Formats: sequence, C-alpha cells, structure tokens
Amino acid sequence: QYNTPEVDKLYQDDAVWIITSSFIIFTMHSGFGLLESGSVSAKDEVNIMVKNVVDVVFGGLSYWSVGYGLSYGDYEPICNWFIGFGRFFYDPTRDQMNVNEEGWSYAAFLFELSLATTASTIVSGAVAERAKLKSYILLGCLVILIQALPAHWVWDKRGFFYKLGVVDFAGCSAVHMVGGIIGLIATVYLKPRRKRFDEDSVHQMSSPTNALLGTFLLWWGWFGINAGSVWGITGGRWRLGARAAVATIMSSIGGGATSIVISFYKTKKLQVNLLINGILSSIVSITALCAVSRPWHALIIGSVSAAFSISVLPLLDRWQIDDPVGVVPIHLTSSIWGMIAVGIFCERDKSIASATNDNAGLLYSWSFNLLGIQLLCTLTILVYSATMGLLVLFCISKSPLGLRVTDYEEQIGADVIEHGLAGTNVARYVVEKPLSTRT
Amino acid sequence: QYNTPEVDKLYQDDAVWIITSSFIIFTMHSGFGLLESGSVSAKDEVNIMVKNVVDVVFGGLSYWSVGYGLSYGDYEPICNWFIGFGRFFYDPTRDQMNVNEEGWSYAAFLFELSLATTASTIVSGAVAERAKLKSYILLGCLVILIQALPAHWVWDKRGFFYKLGVVDFAGCSAVHMVGGIIGLIATVYLKPRRKRFDEDSVHQMSSPTNALLGTFLLWWGWFGINAGSVWGITGGRWRLGARAAVATIMSSIGGGATSIVISFYKTKKLQVNLLINGILSSIVSITALCAVSRPWHALIIGSVSAAFSISVLPLLDRWQIDDPVGVVPIHLTSSIWGMIAVGIFCERDKSIASATNDNAGLLYSWSFNLLGIQLLCTLTILVYSATMGLLVLFCISKSPLGLRVTDYEEQIGADVIEHGLAGTNVARYVVEKPLSTRT
Amino acid sequence: QYNTPEVDKLYQDDAVWIITSSFIIFTMHSGFGLLESGSVSAKDEVNIMVKNVVDVVFGGLSYWSVGYGLSYGDYEPICNWFIGFGRFFYDPTRDQMNVNEEGWSYAAFLFELSLATTASTIVSGAVAERAKLKSYILLGCLVILIQALPAHWVWDKRGFFYKLGVVDFAGCSAVHMVGGIIGLIATVYLKPRRKRFDEDSVHQMSSPTNALLGTFLLWWGWFGINAGSVWGITGGRWRLGARAAVATIMSSIGGGATSIVISFYKTKKLQVNLLINGILSSIVSITALCAVSRPWHALIIGSVSAAFSISVLPLLDRWQIDDPVGVVPIHLTSSIWGMIAVGIFCERDKSIASATNDNAGLLYSWSFNLLGIQLLCTLTILVYSATMGLLVLFCISKSPLGLRVTDYEEQIGADVIEHGLAGTNVARYVVEKPLSTRT
Repeated sequence: QYNTPEVDKLYQDDAVWIITSSFIIFTMHSGFGLLESGSVSAKDEVNIMVKNVVDVVFGGLSYWSVGYGLSYGDYEPICNWFIGFGRFFYDPTRDQMNVNEEGWSYAAFLFELSLATTASTIVSGAVAERAKLKSYILLGCLVILIQALPAHWVWDKRGFFYKLGVVDFAGCSAVHMVGGIIGLIATVYLKPRRKRFDEDSVHQMSSPTNALLGTFLLWWGWFGINAGSVWGITGGRWRLGARAAVATIMSSIGGGATSIVISFYKTKKLQVNLLINGILSSIVSITALCAVSRPWHALIIGSVSAAFSISVLPLLDRWQIDDPVGVVPIHLTSSIWGMIAVGIFCERDKSIASATNDNAGLLYSWSFNLLGIQLLCTLTILVYSATMGLLVLFCISKSPLGLRVTDYEEQIGADVIEHGLAGTNVARYVVEKPLSTRT
Repeated sequence: QYNTPEVDKLYQDDAVWIITSSFIIFTMHSGFGLLESGSVSAKDEVNIMVKNVVDVVFGGLSYWSVGYGLSYGDYEPICNWFIGFGRFFYDPTRDQMNVNEEGWSYAAFLFELSLATTASTIVSGAVAERAKLKSYILLGCLVILIQALPAHWVWDKRGFFYKLGVVDFAGCSAVHMVGGIIGLIATVYLKPRRKRFDEDSVHQMSSPTNALLGTFLLWWGWFGINAGSVWGITGGRWRLGARAAVATIMSSIGGGATSIVISFYKTKKLQVNLLINGILSSIVSITALCAVSRPWHALIIGSVSAAFSISVLPLLDRWQIDDPVGVVPIHLTSSIWGMIAVGIFCERDKSIASATNDNAGLLYSWSFNLLGIQLLCTLTILVYSATMGLLVLFCISKSPLGLRVTDYEEQIGADVIEHGLAGTNVARYVVEKPLSTRT
Repeated sequence: QYNTPEVDKLYQDDAVWIITSSFIIFTMHSGFGLLESGSVSAKDEVNIMVKNVVDVVFGGLSYWSVGYGLSYGDYEPICNWFIGFGRFFYDPTRDQMNVNEEGWSYAAFLFELSLATTASTIVSGAVAERAKLKSYILLGCLVILIQALPAHWVWDKRGFFYKLGVVDFAGCSAVHMVGGIIGLIATVYLKPRRKRFDEDSVHQMSSPTNALLGTFLLWWGWFGINAGSVWGITGGRWRLGARAAVATIMSSIGGGATSIVISFYKTKKLQVNLLINGILSSIVSITALCAVSRPWHALIIGSVSAAFSISVLPLLDRWQIDDPVGVVPIHLTSSIWGMIAVGIFCERDKSIASATNDNAGLLYSWSFNLLGIQLLCTLTILVYSATMGLLVLFCISKSPLGLRVTDYEEQIGADVIEHGLAGTNVARYVVEKPLSTRT
C-alpha cells in the first residue's frame, strides 16, 4: 500500500504542479466573464457574468457525475478507444486504495475539471444576448458531455488519436475546437441579435475596459493551462513547462503585434476588438505545440493565427453570422491552425522523445505523417462536434424550454428579464437610448 | 544550527506551499472589496474598497504587534490553554536561531497574517454604508485581537479545543464564525440603513458585475485557504491539499446549484444575491472538513449550507436586520453548519490519522463524541465573540469617535464625506435620483 | 549532457519557483492597467488599458529580440562590465546543449521578461492622456532597451555595480528608478494636460474603484517580484523568499498607515490617491532590501517612503509638473529612498552571506561603504536614464510621428481618437459636462 520515499516525492512534486495549475486555470472564469460582459451591450452585462458562474456550477456537476467518466473512466469491460466508462460520480477515495494514487486521482480530477468547464464557457459567448438562461444551463451541461469524448480520444491512453500519436498538449482540439465549432453552430442556429445587421446598427460594448481586463486575466490564466499540461515537473518535465510558458507569451506577442499592425493599416485606428481577437487567438493556436515550441515558432504561429482571426471577421459580417464576443476568430480558426501548425513546426525533444510521441513535423522530418494525423484529428473533431452540437440545439429548441428569448425580452435585456435587476441598470437605458433609437 | 539535507528539504517544500498559499489568500482582499463595493449603493462604493485596504494595513499592524502573540506566542511562563503570550512585534530573526526555524517562522507568520486580516474584513461588510471610517479602523484592529483567541484555542497546540480534538482545517470557526457573529452584532447595534425597511425602498447594487467578479475572485482565492491549511506537502500531506481543493470546488457546485434551483422555484428569476450567497456560504461550510472530505460529502454539505443561507434571508427581513452584503448567510449560518457537518461526515484518513485527531463523525463511527466537541467549540466561540464584539461596539459608540454617521452624511454618502470624491461620483447621483426620490 | 538526479532536482525546484513567480508578475499588468485606467479621466480610460497591453506585446518583442541580449548576453568577445551582447532573438534550445541549462534558460528568460515589461509600463502612466499611441509604442520599445543596461550593471555577474557589491534584490534601481526618472522627464517634456493647472480645474478619476482594484492587484503581484527575486528555493534560499514576502506586506502596512495618518491630519479626509501612493511607494522602497529585511526594517522603510511620496506632491503642483497617475511619488522618490535604505538597514544574513555580497549597512557595520555603493549606483542610473530618456523623447518628438496629441484630440479623448470607441463612452461625456464646462 505504501511506496518508497523516492516515489512519494515524485507524486508529491507532480501533484503540487497540477494542483497549482488548476488554481490558475479556474481564475480564467473571471477572465471569460469580464471579457464577455464587457463586450455585450449593457442590458445583458450581468446575465453573461451569471452564465459564467453557471458554467462552473452545472458544468462541474455534469462533469463530476458523468463527463469525467466518459473521458477517463477505466471500467475495462466497456471502455475502449472511442469512449471511457466508469468513475461516474467520481470518488477517488473509493476508487483508489493506494494513498499516492488516491492523492494523484484528486489532483488529476481537479485539473481535468478546471479544463472541462472552460469548454462550455466558450459557447456562452456565442449565444450571448439571446439564449434563454434555463436553456443555456442545459446546453452547458450537454457541451461538457460532448467535449468528454474528444478529450478521451486525444488524451486518454486508450483513445484512438492518442494511439495514433496526435500532439495536443493543452486542449487546442479537445477544448477550443469543440467549443469553437459548437459556438459557431449555435450562433448560426440562434440567428443574429435583433437589428444586428441593419444598415445603421451600432455595435455596443458595455465596457471596453472590462473586456480588456478580462483579456488580461485570460492571458495570465493561460500559463496555468499551457504549463500545467505537461502534467508534472519530475523527470525533467519542468523544462517542458518552462518552454510552454515562454511559448505562451511569445505567441501572444506575435498575435498582438500582428493585430495591431493590421488594425492600424486597415482602419488607421487600433480597434480594441481586433487587439483582443489577435492576442487570444494566438494563445489558442499555441496550445497544441506549446511544450516543445521554440520562441520563434510561437511568434510565427501566433502571428499567423491573429492574421487568420482578423481576416475571418469580414466573412462573418458578409454571411450575417453574429458572433458577439468573437468565438469563431478566437477559438475556431486558431485551433484549426494550431493543430496544423504542429504538423509543420513540431520538433522532437532532445531528451523526452515521448513528449511528441517520437513524431516531428514537416520542417524537422520532411514527412507529412504528423501533419496527416493532426488533420485527421481536426476533421474528426469538427464533424463530430458540429453534429452533436446541432443535435443538442435542435432538441432544446423543440423542447418546452425553447432556446431563443422573445423579441421583447431581447429588447429589454436579460439583466431585467432573467435577474430582475433594475437600479443602476435601468439608469443605463437612458444613456443608451440616443444610440439605439437610430437603429 | 544546521540540519541535514533531508530535513532542509522538508522545510523547503512545506514552506514554499504555505508561502504560495498566502499569496493566493491575499488576493481575496480584492474579492471582498469588489463584492462589497458592487453590493452597496453607488454613494459608498469607493469607501468600502478603502475599508478593505484599511483592513490589511491596520489589521496587519494590529496582528503583527499583538494579535499573533496572543494566538501563537510561546513565552512559557504565561501562555496557556486560553491565551498565547510572546512574539509581540514579531521578529522571527530575533526569536529563532536555527535557519530552518527562522524561515519557517516567516512563512507561518505570513500565512497566519493573510488569514487573520480576512476576519476583520468580514465585519466591514456588515457595517457598510453607516459606520464612520475612523471608528471602523479601530473596530478592525480590535476584531483582529478578538479573533486571536479562538485561533489559539483551535489551532495552537496549547489551545483547549485543539487538545480536545476539534476538527477545523481552514478557519470555519476561528475565522468565519468570529467574523460572522461580530458582523451580526454590529449590524443590529448600528441599526439599518436609512429607509432600508420603508415600504417602497429600493435595494440598490452599485454594480452587480463587480459583485460577481468579487465572488469569482473569492472563489479562486479560497483554494489558497483550504489547500494551504494542510500546512505543507511532505509526509503525504499534499494528498490532503488535493482533497481540500476538490472539496472546495465540489461544495461550491452544490451550493451554487441549490441556490439557483431555489431562486428559480421561488422567484422565477435567478437572483444574483441568492447565487452569491449560495456559492460563498457553501465554501465557508466546507472549510472545517475540507482536507478529509470526499467529493459527495462536499456536495451535500455545500448544498445544505446554501439552503440554510437562503432561508435565513426572510428572517433577517422580518426582524428588520439590515445585512448589506450578506455577512449572516455567507459567514454565520454556514460556519455553524460547517462545524456541525464535521461531526457528521468526518472520516478517519487512511494514512494520516492525526489529520482528524483520530476522530470520526457520526456517519463513520456511530459516536456522538466528535459532534459534541464541534458543538462545544461552536457555542463557546459564538458566546465569546458576541460578548467581546458587543463590548467593543459599546465602547466605540460611547467614545468621542462615535460609531454611526449622521443621517445627512449617510444620505450624501461616504465617498464624498470621507474621501472628498466628487467627479464621476457626483454624476452618478443624477442617475440615481429617479429611483431614490420615490423612497 | 545529463546531470545526476540530485542536480536535476535542484534545477527543478529552483526553476519551478521562478516560473511560478513570473506567472504572478505578469498579473501585475492587469493591476497597472486598472490603476492607470481608473486614475485618468473617462475619455482616456480604454486607451490606457490598451497601452498596458501594448507594453507586453511590443515591449516583449523588443526585449526578446534585443533587450535581453543587452542585459544578459554572453558573447565573450564583446560583452563586458557595461553591456551584454549575444542571445539576440533569444532561442534557448539553440544556445544551450545541456537539458537542465536549456530549461533554466527558458525559466530565467520568462522571469526577466516579466520584470522588464513592467519598466516600460511605468512610463505609460506618466504620459497618460497626451502621448500619441504610435509614438508611445515606439517609446515603450526604447525604454525596454534603455532599461536593459542598468539591469546588466546591477544583476549580471559581469556588471560593474554587481561586482562592486550593490544590493538590489528586486528591481528598485534597475526597474523602478529607471521607469520613474524617465517618467518624470517625459511628463515634463510633454507639458501638463490641458487646463490641468487652471484655477478652477477639476481633477477627475474615471473610476476610483478601479484604481483601488488595480492597487490591490499590484500589491499581491509584488509578492511574485520580491519573493521570486531570490532566484530559487534550494540551498536555503526559500527562507529569503519567505522573508521577502513578509517584508513586502510589512512595508505596505507601514506605508499605508503613514499615508492614512497624514491624509487625515492634513485634509480631515482619507484621500484615495494619497492612500494608493503611500501603499505602492512603500512596496517599491522595500524591493531593494526585501530578502534580508526584518519586519520592523520594512515597516520603517515603508513608512518613510510613504512620507516622502506624499511630501513630493505639493512640490509637483507648485512646479506645475502634471503626473497623472503618480509615477514620481510611487516609483522615483521611493526607489531612491529604497536604495539608500539598504545602505542603512542591510544586515548580513546569518547563513547566506553572499545574499548581501557580505556587506552590511550603517546600522549593522558602522561603515559607510555599502551606503556609498548604493548612492553611486543610484546617481549613475538616474543620470544615465534621464539622459537617455530625454534623447529618445527629443528624437520621437522631432520625428514625423510626433509625441503629443493636438489640443482638439486631447479634448475629445484618446478613446474616440485612437480607438474609435463611441457608445457608452459618448454617454459619459454628457455626464462629465457639468464639471468640465466650468474649466
């Protein structure tokens, strides 16, 4: 039942790393909340913060009871390369006899939970200002379950992409791509906000300051995801954590600089939303490769991701796809590019070859093998998530709950309708009127 | 003077854990400040942020000079089961010769300081919008000293509840119950805010967004308190830290879900203040048991705590007790329930029996022993803190300082009166008028 | 190529410490952003947040490509006591063969980068509300390069102040003094904001709440700088980290208490800006000595620093120096005092004599030696940074870019001019008018 002091020490050091990383990752909910709250119009500002709270609460409940088991359940007769089974209503003390394994199970669950709850949060941005609160709660719980399978495929040792040797350290495909594509499907399904594409409509941000503060919080929180995703520090893995952290900041430097240059070039001004899209999309794009990325890899990958992000915006406008807080540029295009970038820039680690499953990308192996695996994984997850997302949205919208608020409710705003918040918020309507009457 | 490398390593690893936890705990002051600032009316928004700064400054001064010594002083001729003595104006370099002990003393002082300053902060919420600033400063310093004794009883190895075998890992009784009961006494003593219980009074929140952001910050900061309270990671204690962290998030999931369901059921809306009360009260309730709690324990304890919290609100209203930021539901009812819950759910740890002083609760031992100890501790601390709080409030209110602001000052607001802040704040009055003229 | 497990462990433990510290330090950009954004008038609130983003993006680019090499480059034929050379466009994987050294290089670069980007941020406050955005971007990049040399002198093992035995643990001279003096030069060079010193001008803060929240964030972030600056935890250095953390909080207690007492004494009110100046300046003043400071040293040093800070404010007013967010009191006076304080209070560490280069201050050695070194370093850095800052400002202002916005642009505000942000911000103008029409 007990292990040697040396083994105890390995468990201790690795567990402390992922526990601390989880703490950091949870702070990202503050960031998501503020970014979304500051980006929507003032009448829905509080509602979107509440939705971010709900993501942790009901998303967490959904993950603890079922989702975690679908990803990492180990009940041998059932679990396979496609799906996990077991560990439902997870209770590590029950499931593990060895004390080190018990402790590790708690730490690992905490880390996975912190990561999973961010996936449903992504969708909250896409449906902002027009999804009913109760329907959103249900949607969030189901997104957690949809996301559980890609996590199994990519990260569980039984998963088929894991066995194929896919490289995705920190959730580029299994978190951001899933959230991004479901977000896109949801925003198309829900249709745009009222008068969003009218000729003289005005785009309102309730608070650009809060949106930028949220961006900052996400930026720093991402160190927890990327550095934490090396799953420990022993056996020299701390070095991969350090590399992941440097890659995170370098990619954001690339993405930020690119978006600033493009914004100045195209509009003569520094557009706040382009800046936010540029920075966050660049960090998403490096999540797949981060732990083995060189600084200049990250700089290039982040820059390209920001360029993609910004060029997708006019397309969304032309196709009248209303994406209130930039889910498509931040999570979708960048995660697709991030997965592809691995196939190009991935380099074998000089000491821990297993970090990249002994694979290398085009640039370092002149082989299209890894690129192919990455593309297959990307395509599979896109098709799977889109299908499941559409199915779930269809079912909810046809259920008695319904999906979209009425035109009247949308006009009044969710802060009043869903939360009964008058007071300061009522006052803000006066302020908004001279703007919105023109629309 | 020097120890072996092995012992050095133990000190190093444990100290780093509590130092890092302290850093996290200090961030909770941002959370308290924002939650309180967003929950009061706009005319006192800045004042309450300043009070949270003051808590660290003067509370810290009070703790360093006297409070820490009353809790953990080790001057043998005087200190006993009731009170500590020594270590006043604490200077570890002077008090410890051994370098490891010196370092550990610094780390331990930092951790205790971070915890103690949160106790006086709790009271700041209870007296919001009507206590004079100077009187509040004095009150804060004295609360720190009041709180020093329960900390001695529960956590110091000489303390009588410690010897009795009470289980309170992270300040359920010694921090939250002390703060909660003094807060209740203070808010009753101060009487409600003007026109608070008038027929057509309007409850204003200066910023629900900020209140929710503050809730988020507290939520993540609590990982530092609960995981840090295992006092290190060596000897397998990292496992208890991991369990404490999972218990923290699971209890908040339970509390959040419960409060959302109750809110929808009772009001058809998701009330923001019920959500905040539910989440924070559930985390308070798990502080006592966290390190040995299973996920489902935490889920139940948190859910019950949220239910208690929400059911106490109508009582406060009926008795015309004005509790501006929810000190009673968040800190008082939940800490009482949290201490009792230990007596029910506490399980012996399979490896570190001393974690629960070799005690187990009703469910795992069919003995009322631990429950009795928990109840005795609860009752003693309630009676002691209420008495001391009342004494202190009486003395301050009869002193030349006085306690409550004048009616005129309350109407104008502390931001102008105490801080001379016109400008944007003056502007906000215009905005508020259509609401407040009705009262 | 590989080291023994014992050496691996040392690398691992130290690297994890500075990586984690870097994560904390990066959060300070949120703090700087909010403090500055809340302190300026509402028309420039978003612009200053963007400038804080830009500091990380372009400042980071500048540091990665050139700055880091000037500080810590090790290309032997060129680098000397005055300047580093090499490591440009830094790529540790290329520059280090040994895996431990590679990992350490990533961690060290991350830490230095996090520190360096804060230096240019300081200047952003000084030029708030009147520097053109593009010019500011250029200025920020150049400040990073200016700052690279003092960092080399003080912290690189080849640097001449390092060899002289100067004591500056956490950037008192090499970060705050450089930023503070360039900020002073810049604000004088740019001239005051329009109507700032008119008879009936009104000082506006867009949001005192945000300014205080920013102060909080900086306060906690500073634990990362001060504790992280012991560069690891092995060999008993964790003890110095614990001391640095306690010194940080004790100095802020001293500075906060002093500024509150002065504010009450002089104005009968607790002025928010005096409180902010007092707390932040006291933490700056302890950065030099933190790791070997006793609690009472920190308390005194912080108190004196706050007193200096507050007494410099009337002088700035008399000389009509417009310092929008308090760069002079927070970073300049306090860093000068902090360097001098080392010469007075520095004590030899009982175990790690090299921590203070075996030097002690006046109080513990009755020798003026260390004080002399500190003064020489202070003077050199002041003269160098002022000269370089002036040169850079002159070049930018004479370039086609220009430096200061037009009177019209300043009146409209950077949020509209540089970022095209109307919407809620336009609304705020209505609110401000009754105030600003008087000026």
